[in-house]
Amino acid sequence: MLGNLIGPEINELIETRNFSAIRHLLETLPAADQGEIISELPEEIQAIVFRLLPQTNATEVLEYLGPEEQERIIRNLGNEEAARILNDMSSDDRTALLEELPPAVVTQLLTLLSPKEQQIARTLLGYPEGSVGRLMTTEFLTVRPEWTVGETLDYIRAHGRDSETLNVIYVTDHAGGLIDDVHIREFLLSPLGTTVADIHDNRFIALRVSDSADVALSLFKKYDRASLPVVDSRDTLLGIVTVDDMLDIQDEATTEDIQKIGGMEALDTPYMETPMLQMIRKRAVWLIVLFVGEMFTATAMGFFEHELEKAVVLSLFIPLIISSGGNSGSQASTLIIRALALGEISLHDWWRIMAKEIVAGLALGAILGTIGFTRIVAWSQFSSTYGPHYFLVAAAVAISIVGVVLWGTLSGSMLPLILRRFGLDPATSSAPFVATLVDVTGLVIYFSTAVLILRGTVM
Amino acid sequence: MLGNLIGPEINELIETRNFSAIRHLLETLPAADQGEIISELPEEIQAIVFRLLPQTNATEVLEYLGPEEQERIIRNLGNEEAARILNDMSSDDRTALLEELPPAVVTQLLTLLSPKEQQIARTLLGYPEGSVGRLMTTEFLTVRPEWTVGETLDYIRAHGRDSETLNVIYVTDHAGGLIDDVHIREFLLSPLGTTVADIHDNRFIALRVSDSADVALSLFKKYDRASLPVVDSRDTLLGIVTVDDMLDIQDEATTEDIQKIGGMEALDTPYMETPMLQMIRKRAVWLIVLFVGEMFTATAMGFFEHELEKAVVLSLFIPLIISSGGNSGSQASTLIIRALALGEISLHDWWRIMAKEIVAGLALGAILGTIGFTRIVAWSQFSSTYGPHYFLVAAAVAISIVGVVLWGTLSGSMLPLILRRFGLDPATSSAPFVATLVDVTGLVIYFSTAVLILRGTVM
Repeated sequence: MLGNLIGPEINELIETRNFSAIRHLLETLPAADQGEIISELPEEIQAIVFRLLPQTNATEVLEYLGPEEQERIIRNLGNEEAARILNDMSSDDRTALLEELPPAVVTQLLTLLSPKEQQIARTLLGYPEGSVGRLMTTEFLTVRPEWTVGETLDYIRAHGRDSETLNVIYVTDHAGGLIDDVHIREFLLSPLGTTVADIHDNRFIALRVSDSADVALSLFKKYDRASLPVVDSRDTLLGIVTVDDMLDIQDEATTEDIQKIGGMEALDTPYMETPMLQMIRKRAVWLIVLFVGEMFTATAMGFFEHELEKAVVLSLFIPLIISSGGNSGSQASTLIIRALALGEISLHDWWRIMAKEIVAGLALGAILGTIGFTRIVAWSQFSSTYGPHYFLVAAAVAISIVGVVLWGTLSGSMLPLILRRFGLDPATSSAPFVATLVDVTGLVIYFSTAVLILRGTVM
Repeated sequence: MLGNLIGPEINELIETRNFSAIRHLLETLPAADQGEIISELPEEIQAIVFRLLPQTNATEVLEYLGPEEQERIIRNLGNEEAARILNDMSSDDRTALLEELPPAVVTQLLTLLSPKEQQIARTLLGYPEGSVGRLMTTEFLTVRPEWTVGETLDYIRAHGRDSETLNVIYVTDHAGGLIDDVHIREFLLSPLGTTVADIHDNRFIALRVSDSADVALSLFKKYDRASLPVVDSRDTLLGIVTVDDMLDIQDEATTEDIQKIGGMEALDTPYMETPMLQMIRKRAVWLIVLFVGEMFTATAMGFFEHELEKAVVLSLFIPLIISSGGNSGSQASTLIIRALALGEISLHDWWRIMAKEIVAGLALGAILGTIGFTRIVAWSQFSSTYGPHYFLVAAAVAISIVGVVLWGTLSGSMLPLILRRFGLDPATSSAPFVATLVDVTGLVIYFSTAVLILRGTVM
């Protein structure tokens, strides 16, 4: 967005080799905007412009770029400069970069790191993908309970430069075991002579290094913290996770849910960057499952072929009736999947949900049934499409709609709960999945109703 | 969760009137957990337990409760205690409480506030719903550029107690105009004699008080900030918004999107708390629109009634074929809606998206068409359901499936882009909406193909 405005100007400055003007232009902007401009430039000049950034600021700008751009730029830098930046990156951003790269590139980049940073990078990459270990940074500041506030502030001034955050300071014992986390606020507001032990209250919330990113997200949401400490099984402080990563984690989690609701496997990569074969595979799996399920509609209708031959008029309303069931089911399942994901409802509520959905399903079915009935009867005043017994046809269609909508609403709302009950992901009961289920049963409801009402007249 | 474990114990302690034990039990827990326990207690004892909390901690616990519970508890407190807590609440949480309450209650509660807090509360409620003004707190700390770091830290120690955050300190001019925001980190790391003017760099990002919450969310995501200042049109600093509110804003935004993708109006309230009539209305609107749209299937099929009478076998595959189009359309529209919401794609990409979806649609159509063809031919080896010309029927079905899936994929991917182009919400092109569109056209594709292939044999 910003890049589209400033990009052409930068291109012109690059063509005229006016590097001091470029540097001057970039310097007025926050790092996030510098990153945005660079990422919107043509690939071949990204590295050129990046090298114009002041050293103090280059690493921060790089951290705002995507892994692909980071890799391209780092490959274009000299070894010395690449080493400086990789050593300088916060360890969580570095892990995010390294985990996206092919193993050969990772091995090569790791050799550029100082022994200490190499050790840290290897440890972090050793934690399982999607775990808190992959998200944490090891740059944090610890203090001892016997220090005074004044000593602590002096210590921060001398050693805090590399810490990822100074919003929270961690209190540890001799062995590095976490005793408490203290918000910087407490240090800022307390008299300088107070000791750390006087301030801290031993009520801290910590993540385990093996916790999943989703667990971290739920703790951040619940406790409204800006950062959380990460400990191992013996409560040794290993690192911290900061809240700014959580907005991304939350986006990833909902993207997965939304794609499942849309009736496919989650892509796990941005739409434009997903290779075609992988995209087709992730969509084909569910399309095939749904297609095979939907084949039962042909089987179900096969049983009524004789009736259909006698009353072809019935087939005209098949799409209308089954789609009503699918649509109401899609609404119900989407509502319940989202409410489960937000923790608004739990399995214990199943009975109250069912009661709610029965009322809603009957009301919605009655509304649609009335519209359908009116439409067929009204149409028949001007046309003979629906035959002499149009009134009975209209009645059969209307009653079927009520039944199908009620059934769609009920299946749509109960299926996510049943999946959750058996430890499966509720989002699997996607709109298309519920629709397929309701299509087959909806046809049976429709034809059975029609046979009951129309036998002896139309059939 | 936690409440389920400790709740029964608390109930017992309440029955035995062992209030000191309850107080002791709660004191060991963080405020968020105290809040969770209280919200899971039966309504009639929530206020009793709340009153056992130490004064210093009560307001914080209340801020973790939902508006309904907050209201119930505040109504159960004496006026004096309620006044203390309302005056003490951070102004953003208080706005969130007041905006949920009926006007009469708000008027009554406002009279409990001190004149200064009353003024603040009225101003914040005056901003439009969903705007940054409703999210901001007015408790922030400003310093002057000519101060030294040492003076600033002393000032914070003396006056910072009520500030919502001390992570960021705001630099203003004589008139209250925002000059810069400076992270507390800079103050903590700089020598005490440095002046504020030496530290700040004039590169700040600010929200306008009239910006929408969504704008705030996108700025927080882009700039990775823990808080952002809010200014009016003359750059006067009015308040700050903190990142912890953004996780909730993001949840609300995706819930709206998901409910629209599910084919309904966004509920705007949690599932369980939505009144039945409102729930039915929000679902019925789209169900009716879709139902009326779907009526065109009956019209479309009416044109082919003559062909249907000659070849009832065709009707057996109607649900299978139209649902294949609906399912592939649902996948495509969900993918594009989400990618648009995340900013992964923009309107400029329409041509690349279309190219991608044509390839995907042809591939997916070919897969499903092959399965359908095989199924009909294989079945016909054992059964005469599909008649002597089953091979031609199979070919007509397979070719229709390729066409319908391609068409579904294309409409599903292009519709969200078209809606965005005309300034409408892309999420409106829900799975059911795309399915309905594809149902009508899918039938035309199917019957036209069938007429071409089967004329002279089956028909």
